[in-house]
Amino acid sequence: MQDAVIGIDLGGTSTKFGLVSKEGELLAYDAIPTDSTKTYEHFFEHLYHQADKLQHKVDTDIAIQGIGVGAPAGNYCTGTIEDASNLHWEPNIPVTKTLAQVSNLPTVLMNDANASAEGERLYGAAQGMENFISITLGTGLGCGIVIDGRLVVGQRGHAGEIGHTTVFYDGRECSCGRLGCLETYVSGPGLVATVQELLSKKDIESTLGNMRIADMDAKSITAAARQQDQLAREAFNYTGKILGLKLADMVTTLNPEAIIISGGLAKAGALILEPAKRSMEDHLLEMFQDEVTVLPSSLTEKNAAILGASASIWNTLEREQTPYV
Amino acid sequence: MQDAVIGIDLGGTSTKFGLVSKEGELLAYDAIPTDSTKTYEHFFEHLYHQADKLQHKVDTDIAIQGIGVGAPAGNYCTGTIEDASNLHWEPNIPVTKTLAQVSNLPTVLMNDANASAEGERLYGAAQGMENFISITLGTGLGCGIVIDGRLVVGQRGHAGEIGHTTVFYDGRECSCGRLGCLETYVSGPGLVATVQELLSKKDIESTLGNMRIADMDAKSITAAARQQDQLAREAFNYTGKILGLKLADMVTTLNPEAIIISGGLAKAGALILEPAKRSMEDHLLEMFQDEVTVLPSSLTEKNAAILGASASIWNTLEREQTPYV
Repeated sequence: MQDAVIGIDLGGTSTKFGLVSKEGELLAYDAIPTDSTKTYEHFFEHLYHQADKLQHKVDTDIAIQGIGVGAPAGNYCTGTIEDASNLHWEPNIPVTKTLAQVSNLPTVLMNDANASAEGERLYGAAQGMENFISITLGTGLGCGIVIDGRLVVGQRGHAGEIGHTTVFYDGRECSCGRLGCLETYVSGPGLVATVQELLSKKDIESTLGNMRIADMDAKSITAAARQQDQLAREAFNYTGKILGLKLADMVTTLNPEAIIISGGLAKAGALILEPAKRSMEDHLLEMFQDEVTVLPSSLTEKNAAILGASASIWNTLEREQTPYV
Repeated sequence: MQDAVIGIDLGGTSTKFGLVSKEGELLAYDAIPTDSTKTYEHFFEHLYHQADKLQHKVDTDIAIQGIGVGAPAGNYCTGTIEDASNLHWEPNIPVTKTLAQVSNLPTVLMNDANASAEGERLYGAAQGMENFISITLGTGLGCGIVIDGRLVVGQRGHAGEIGHTTVFYDGRECSCGRLGCLETYVSGPGLVATVQELLSKKDIESTLGNMRIADMDAKSITAAARQQDQLAREAFNYTGKILGLKLADMVTTLNPEAIIISGGLAKAGALILEPAKRSMEDHLLEMFQDEVTVLPSSLTEKNAAILGASASIWNTLEREQTPYV
């Protein structure tokens, strides 16, 4: 008999799920479309039964201990997905309540960035760490903060929204309606915007000048930078510099031992991490200098979200906090 | 028999101490000069004996449970005062070790800003709160962060140094050697600098124009503002605005329920709190708006530091953490 949990990565179009051991082994996994045409009750009942069936794919007998769900706009405090723009059920979806009713298992919900942090702590680059910050660079910028071994969710479950802290008060327009949010600079689309600004301003020859704007993304800019494209490198330096300013801010405020960077843009590796580290160190008080490690995630992207969701429930069970039953 | 702790406010010239009940009653107090001419061992032995003697000033029998010390540059993690510029012993002074040896009592050390936060939680404006930020505005800007009912000290005891986060990258020179630190704007000296900038730039009549710069401080600027001096009010609005930008940053990162403002500059009350609140709300995501209370400290300045130091040890004893013995 082996203990496992169900980890669920709930996305706008598809929902991936797996059985995960305490040690982070993905014993079995599957995916279903995130079907918003039926009720959410129907969807979660179907989802649980599909996840439960995964046991048949495993040789040993499995004792499922709980369910962890990672979802955009998932709120740990309420167990509810709040106003997720890419889901088409009611504005507020009571995920833990619904899943716990179907499964009778302890269930937790987290937003993706927090689930990532939990994943790094249990299975990834932050193993054994008590104080660290996990930053996810994708279409936006997500953040999970761990202090004294516990994820910081805040008074109403909204902690870690640093993508919407302001870096330039008259800066780029953000989807949130404000100006100069961090994620308008430090994210996939932020990097693309920087390349476009540089192309319009500078007289540097760049292979990126021949691309259609709609085709440009972090991946293509990374490829150009790896081929020594000067403009692409300059865009990464600028992005890293702004990330580093924010990291210095976080280090000065929370004194973590490490910062873990994950997500699509983090695949650029040293292209973004090196300027970020330099800029962070340049803006730190002496007492904080050369103390904080900036590391890439050690979880493979494919399973990171399922592992993060699994870690959320393992960590909650371990801390003997009260998950939803 | 009544339980009490010794609360110590260690300052550069004078050290104040008192016996404080769990309920925050200051049963007796006294002060001695902070004499750096003898060894620190000698000083702390003398200090403990003076504090112990306070029992004779109280009618009931006292059972002393522990010692809490608040000091500039006091590090909770190490129990050591690290490089305090206004003390003239060795650079590192092992406060808890020395006091525990003399007294055989559980002893904790904190920097002033963290002790303030502990004081607000146990006796002040943050009673019953689990997630709040305490900001002390004096000659510098100190900060204590409480998350899930626990003070955040960070990996090496340096959390909360937000006075040295950057607000303008080409801003005012800070005593730390960098440019544009928050406390060069939001502090007593920061307010004075703002008044001087406004006097040099603007053609507004102000009573402050007749003062010697050396005589100008938060108190005199507050008095002028209360008498409707337009330039003084403009200086407060500017200071409050910058404080509010930082508060928005902190709220977005940590989602607290309240922010408590204490220290000399906070005595200006609405003059600084109102523009700070407005600016904070203006820079928050919708999900955080109208959720966070910004409150003045409810501890009287005179005893606040002793109460804060006392709260540090009461809270530590209550949490069953291991203080130094």
